[in-house]
Amino acid sequence: MVMRTEVAIVGAGPAGLLLAHLLDRAGIESVVVETRSQEYVASRIRAGILEQSSVDVLTAAGLGDRLRAEGHEHRGVYLQWPGGRHHLDFVDLTGRSVWVYGQTEVQKDLVRAHGGPVVYEVTDTALHDLTTDHPYVTYTDRDGVGRRLDAAVIAGCDGSFGPSRAAVPQSARQVYERTYPYSWLGVLADVAPSTDELIYAWHPDGFALHSMRSPTVSRLYLQVPNGTDPQTWPDERVWSELAKRLGHGQDGWTLTPGPITEKSVLPMRSLVQTPMRHGRLFLAGDAAHIVPPTGAKGLNLAIADVARLAPALTALLRGNGSARAERYSDDALARVWRCTHFSWWMTTMLHATSDPFDAQLQLSQLRWVTSSRAGATGLAENYAGLPL
Amino acid sequence: MVMRTEVAIVGAGPAGLLLAHLLDRAGIESVVVETRSQEYVASRIRAGILEQSSVDVLTAAGLGDRLRAEGHEHRGVYLQWPGGRHHLDFVDLTGRSVWVYGQTEVQKDLVRAHGGPVVYEVTDTALHDLTTDHPYVTYTDRDGVGRRLDAAVIAGCDGSFGPSRAAVPQSARQVYERTYPYSWLGVLADVAPSTDELIYAWHPDGFALHSMRSPTVSRLYLQVPNGTDPQTWPDERVWSELAKRLGHGQDGWTLTPGPITEKSVLPMRSLVQTPMRHGRLFLAGDAAHIVPPTGAKGLNLAIADVARLAPALTALLRGNGSARAERYSDDALARVWRCTHFSWWMTTMLHATSDPFDAQLQLSQLRWVTSSRAGATGLAENYAGLPL
Repeated sequence: MVMRTEVAIVGAGPAGLLLAHLLDRAGIESVVVETRSQEYVASRIRAGILEQSSVDVLTAAGLGDRLRAEGHEHRGVYLQWPGGRHHLDFVDLTGRSVWVYGQTEVQKDLVRAHGGPVVYEVTDTALHDLTTDHPYVTYTDRDGVGRRLDAAVIAGCDGSFGPSRAAVPQSARQVYERTYPYSWLGVLADVAPSTDELIYAWHPDGFALHSMRSPTVSRLYLQVPNGTDPQTWPDERVWSELAKRLGHGQDGWTLTPGPITEKSVLPMRSLVQTPMRHGRLFLAGDAAHIVPPTGAKGLNLAIADVARLAPALTALLRGNGSARAERYSDDALARVWRCTHFSWWMTTMLHATSDPFDAQLQLSQLRWVTSSRAGATGLAENYAGLPL
Repeated sequence: MVMRTEVAIVGAGPAGLLLAHLLDRAGIESVVVETRSQEYVASRIRAGILEQSSVDVLTAAGLGDRLRAEGHEHRGVYLQWPGGRHHLDFVDLTGRSVWVYGQTEVQKDLVRAHGGPVVYEVTDTALHDLTTDHPYVTYTDRDGVGRRLDAAVIAGCDGSFGPSRAAVPQSARQVYERTYPYSWLGVLADVAPSTDELIYAWHPDGFALHSMRSPTVSRLYLQVPNGTDPQTWPDERVWSELAKRLGHGQDGWTLTPGPITEKSVLPMRSLVQTPMRHGRLFLAGDAAHIVPPTGAKGLNLAIADVARLAPALTALLRGNGSARAERYSDDALARVWRCTHFSWWMTTMLHATSDPFDAQLQLSQLRWVTSSRAGATGLAENYAGLPL
């Protein structure tokens, strides 16, 4: 059975749904196909920090109301290492702030706002004829019926393991990749955060991060070795290690433990696939690039890609010129590499290694970033996000 | 034969002679012992860039006249990679500048200014009884006579391979070290520099640096593999590789070759030995820390150490308290680690590796440093030097 649309979007995560929504507002028709169920996509726990320009994009797309009502604006973050905690005030340094608003919430807002067709629980998704004027996507729907979706262009918003980026022939793509010798053990806990803003903590035993999702839900992370089994971290061990690395008891600060509702291990890697366009296929978000979570760039970068891609496709499909579409990959990659570097830098500055020279380099950087206005501003402008 | 002085200084390079000179001005007696000949020390080719605070220290010590007459003030440096050259103006960014004035010239000024005893061409130098109140140095003079030099304190200014840092028992010191997988091939050429200020050039085939010593002498460097034999680099090969990496012919810029008068390969390493004090022994300069040459911190760090050590020893020996001497190691190490980080950062940002991900990180950093005021200021304040 053949359907036809203007833009076939592979993937119904934030990148795919935001693109569908922005195209819809511009009068461009799309169909989104997604391998997971709507419930799964809506509930998976991912990023939690929106940079200023992401908030601007969502607001301009009519998605800012609940964000502003239920999200929490943060002026900055804390950086700490044994001996002290230092606040970086992004608003003072750059005039820009960040918002705590989980990806799950962004996803809910997008599902609610977007009225166009989204086909969940498809299998065997494949992309075809990308370098012709008639690309199409095939898949099997949840009833086992084979489908074909013809489109003017295809947007690959299906993450690092989806079929889109793999559909670019090896000869036409370059993959840049870095793996890191550590992972994060992440927990969600039903307890009020013990801090008003995020704490990034360097510690000789490993990095720790105190983040949050809401005034009643804390999100906390511990650096652990790759291959760590979350089962080896009972709740008491998690809390006592967090207390140690986050400095419980120092300068009167206490970490309040609470019931842990989710626990998982996240590997850390950097990946960039270039170019982000191949013929009629445009990649956006995790389909083109993965960053380690330190610095919270993943979701923001996906939003930045889509904010650039939607008007480019609109112009292309409405006959208003292909210049923006031609430039899409290069333009998007400038920001991608900036954020890839920033994420790598935050990651390598904060995670313990077995090399004592590394530790001294890290501490020297942390002291500099918290004592030099240029150093602090450099971190702040990257963290709060460069203007689009 | 026993001599007695207040401060026994091991090493007559810039750190040792500047310390002797500053102590002399404060009325403290010293004797300097040096394994090399005066001619060798005076002629060895080393660093060429003085940061603002080094100029201030030398000027305050009465050593600024020839520096100001014959040195050349630079407002900043150029950073380049294929596609463009970008100027960073340190004066605009930080109000501070740097001076081109070779270590050989600083050494000449010090030899001329310092009237106290300097014993050259000694052998078998050894340090004794460092944790007592009566430390001493033994050596054999150039006539083969064994000597003993008793002192109230000993200053180890004898570089990374001298006896001073090795005289600290292993149990009382920690050594932090990093080697790099590349070296510099450096040449001196009797030709006017082809640039008004230094050019730091990233290139996929390897880093290149166009520096200078005077209006008629150029100093140029090429990244080469470790273990490179300078014999494998005839002059024509040096100039053609420099031309390629420095962008000869681009935007109308040309590199003018000339007679090469010196050619050598410099290994790159970082090393910090802590603490910088052991009993009555105080380490300064290369005896305590080595930085790779990228960013020109080695000589400046030695001057900063000595500027801190001289008043500390003066206070200690004149009965004005031991507080500064007690703090010497910690205070000096804060700057040492800042410069160690900066040198490591400049080095790893600019040198080609075999990893394409590294190359993209480097280019992203270079674009950021040349387009963000915070990024540019961060580099500038480290390069031009933090105030003492």
